[in-house]
Amino acid sequence: MNYPILARYLGQFLLFFGLCLLPGAAWSLLHLEWRPLAAFLAAMAVSGALGGGLWFLGRRADGRMYNREALAVVGLGWLVAAGIGGLPFWIGGMFGNPVDAYFESMSGFTTTGASVLVDIEAASKGLVFWRSFTHWLGGMGIIVLFISILPYLGAGGKQLFKNESPGPDPRGLAPKIRDTASILWKIYVAMTVVLAVILMLEGMSLHDALCHSFGTVATGGFSTRNASVAAYSSVGIELTLIVFMVLAGTNFSLFFAVWGRDWRTLVRDPEWRAYILVLVLATLAITADLWFEGAVDGLASALRGAGFSAVSVMTTTGFGTADFDRWPDFSRAVLLLLMFVGGCAGSTGGGLKVIRLLILWKVAWERLHKAWSPRAVRTIKIGNDVISPELQHTVLVFFMLFLAAAALGTLAMAALGLDLVSAFSAVAATLNNIGPGLGVVGPTSNYADLPTAGKAVLSLLMAIGRIELFAILVLFSPGFWRKN
Amino acid sequence: MNYPILARYLGQFLLFFGLCLLPGAAWSLLHLEWRPLAAFLAAMAVSGALGGGLWFLGRRADGRMYNREALAVVGLGWLVAAGIGGLPFWIGGMFGNPVDAYFESMSGFTTTGASVLVDIEAASKGLVFWRSFTHWLGGMGIIVLFISILPYLGAGGKQLFKNESPGPDPRGLAPKIRDTASILWKIYVAMTVVLAVILMLEGMSLHDALCHSFGTVATGGFSTRNASVAAYSSVGIELTLIVFMVLAGTNFSLFFAVWGRDWRTLVRDPEWRAYILVLVLATLAITADLWFEGAVDGLASALRGAGFSAVSVMTTTGFGTADFDRWPDFSRAVLLLLMFVGGCAGSTGGGLKVIRLLILWKVAWERLHKAWSPRAVRTIKIGNDVISPELQHTVLVFFMLFLAAAALGTLAMAALGLDLVSAFSAVAATLNNIGPGLGVVGPTSNYADLPTAGKAVLSLLMAIGRIELFAILVLFSPGFWRKN
Repeated sequence: MNYPILARYLGQFLLFFGLCLLPGAAWSLLHLEWRPLAAFLAAMAVSGALGGGLWFLGRRADGRMYNREALAVVGLGWLVAAGIGGLPFWIGGMFGNPVDAYFESMSGFTTTGASVLVDIEAASKGLVFWRSFTHWLGGMGIIVLFISILPYLGAGGKQLFKNESPGPDPRGLAPKIRDTASILWKIYVAMTVVLAVILMLEGMSLHDALCHSFGTVATGGFSTRNASVAAYSSVGIELTLIVFMVLAGTNFSLFFAVWGRDWRTLVRDPEWRAYILVLVLATLAITADLWFEGAVDGLASALRGAGFSAVSVMTTTGFGTADFDRWPDFSRAVLLLLMFVGGCAGSTGGGLKVIRLLILWKVAWERLHKAWSPRAVRTIKIGNDVISPELQHTVLVFFMLFLAAAALGTLAMAALGLDLVSAFSAVAATLNNIGPGLGVVGPTSNYADLPTAGKAVLSLLMAIGRIELFAILVLFSPGFWRKN
Repeated sequence: MNYPILARYLGQFLLFFGLCLLPGAAWSLLHLEWRPLAAFLAAMAVSGALGGGLWFLGRRADGRMYNREALAVVGLGWLVAAGIGGLPFWIGGMFGNPVDAYFESMSGFTTTGASVLVDIEAASKGLVFWRSFTHWLGGMGIIVLFISILPYLGAGGKQLFKNESPGPDPRGLAPKIRDTASILWKIYVAMTVVLAVILMLEGMSLHDALCHSFGTVATGGFSTRNASVAAYSSVGIELTLIVFMVLAGTNFSLFFAVWGRDWRTLVRDPEWRAYILVLVLATLAITADLWFEGAVDGLASALRGAGFSAVSVMTTTGFGTADFDRWPDFSRAVLLLLMFVGGCAGSTGGGLKVIRLLILWKVAWERLHKAWSPRAVRTIKIGNDVISPELQHTVLVFFMLFLAAAALGTLAMAALGLDLVSAFSAVAATLNNIGPGLGVVGPTSNYADLPTAGKAVLSLLMAIGRIELFAILVLFSPGFWRKN
């Protein structure tokens, strides 16, 4: 590990991160909320001081940034940013316990949407705005912003992007990382603005519309209302959110093609087709279950509840319109599995990602075929892209580590006293960055009553899931920190 | 698929299998149970007729046996043998429903020990003996017996053994498959006799001692008592069973070494060390949980219950001395995870097998290390054996398919109306060949009240888990059945 390099880039990142707190400060000022305003200024000061200090320590760094340093900047960057981003919640009076503030902030930046805030409607407007804004920052990746806004990073940029971009994306984007980040950023802003305007036309206030827009395009799921989206009882709003959640779970690089009126690239994309297929099948399965079991009034109501919940869970957003914890066990099992599927690679969604499962599916078929014709050589392709043995290995190991994290997390939550369904679903809902789970962390409840240690464990799982394991897991490996 | 070859070997197998029913018939005769005796004779006739017919159809087979035919013999062999082995239960009057009989028989042959029999003590001695004897036959693998008893199989033998031997075993055994099978078979018989004698000295009747010995060395778990091993309330019997369950979960090839007084090979075997380590850690974790939560009276009682249950579950035997479904959730979660660990490769235990998890653990570390030094090349070794990339791939795919089977099974059981914990644990307890699960299939309950479709699904899962996926999964692949 080249510590001066690490200090320098982490310092630069924190200096930049301090500026990200400005919108929260502005919103507090607008609503004349003085304590939250002071809290934001304090957090900015901390970020600035810490960033400046680190930058000073690393000012004479030499050598270029290697994978090791890039991973450390990403991993530590997330963990520290969540801490500084949580300071306003703590200093601003939203939570008395700093772990609660950290949990809420980590949940925001990882676009999870799991909350320990009991009465959202009674909380400060500035803090609630910041809470949703952390989704938005995290959504496209604070690191991507970092690249497009601070272009002087140079060689380090590419390394960072590689770790940050969610999912293995065989398509690649524009060759120049900086341009790419800048284009993605424009699409992201456009989507946010369009959605906010539509939501305002459908009756939301500016504050609510912006917060829900942040939560949707980032597949986050924090709401401004205690009852989440159910509070609006509006078919229009639900349909709008379904469309934008599906878009937010789509690989953003496909929007380049659509931008150039090339719809066929979207419709023919194997991952996108599988993504839509799973959404439709899950919706139909849950609708049938709800209808046959008589869990809701009528088919239309079943379809509405099933569709919104399936989209909300699979895109890993986590907005709620129905208490799916009270649904029959088959529907609950389908939702638990959808949590692990997640969105497309290159989207803001979490989970394992559709493309990985598509690769695993093909690998499984190839291996089965090999059982009876051992000498047959078949290359695995997704669309026109050959999936190399190295990529297969990486995806298989990722799958294993992801499930190992889920198993260990469940064990830890059970040790802290949660029943098995609550423990497993709390882990699934945080590791996959969804938000609501089942049982004591179900849609009508939240994470407030969990023991403090449990909130810490789940915070770590959110980070592990969001930046796809490695950048967090390596931090626990002693060899990683060896000086070179 | 060379159908004549398939018919010929399947026919030979069934002709042999008919003879395996003889001990059941003898035991019925000894107890003057006429209906069960008639049932055994009928089942033998069916096996003989079916076997003879298939053998006749394949009498002019030419060409040698390839993987495709070997897989089909193993897969179909198990499914059909379980059917014929279940006939005595049905015709003999133990069950009115043939699916119940099939479930009980499959549970026996796969050494699972999940039961749909409500009152074992009221049932015919001959049928209860056969029920435990199916464990014994299945335990070492009816196919291994097949090889050592019917040596004229020739080239086909090696292919069969490859599919049958549980777990990837880098050690290898004696070069000649037939000799190996014969040696394993002698060790197996010796263990069974020794255990039965000890159990009789500890107060069991001949019938009970034999049945429990079959259930132990095969890691099956069928008992002759409704309360399972708890019925004896004997510390001596429990300790004896713990020792023999641990032995039954050990790689049998290690017994060669011990036979030659080479204890170091056993003690230094990486898989065996990991196996013992996991057993000890799990026992300590559960003991601590039971003690702190006050779930049992005193530390000694906690240790006794935890030790027996951990060994019983991890070796995939499934004997019960305590209702672990009523234990705190952490203990239940530990037991659920132990189910998936299972025994050592080359033992009669089920589950993923310790060696696979050891390989996965090393693969994970290697991949993590690669995240920060991409150009470092490190070979993965277990003891002195290098784990090739091909073997890594196979183990990773196996892990994925195994968990996919668990997920789909849970979905199916939830669709049939089971709650999530019961559904998942029923699947875990059958796929891993343990027996008792949690909830409605917990240790004090059994599988009798499940819907018929659920019993069929679980029967299939038992077979999938026992012969390690491929030989069953390929049967569902249309390309597998293509004529060559």
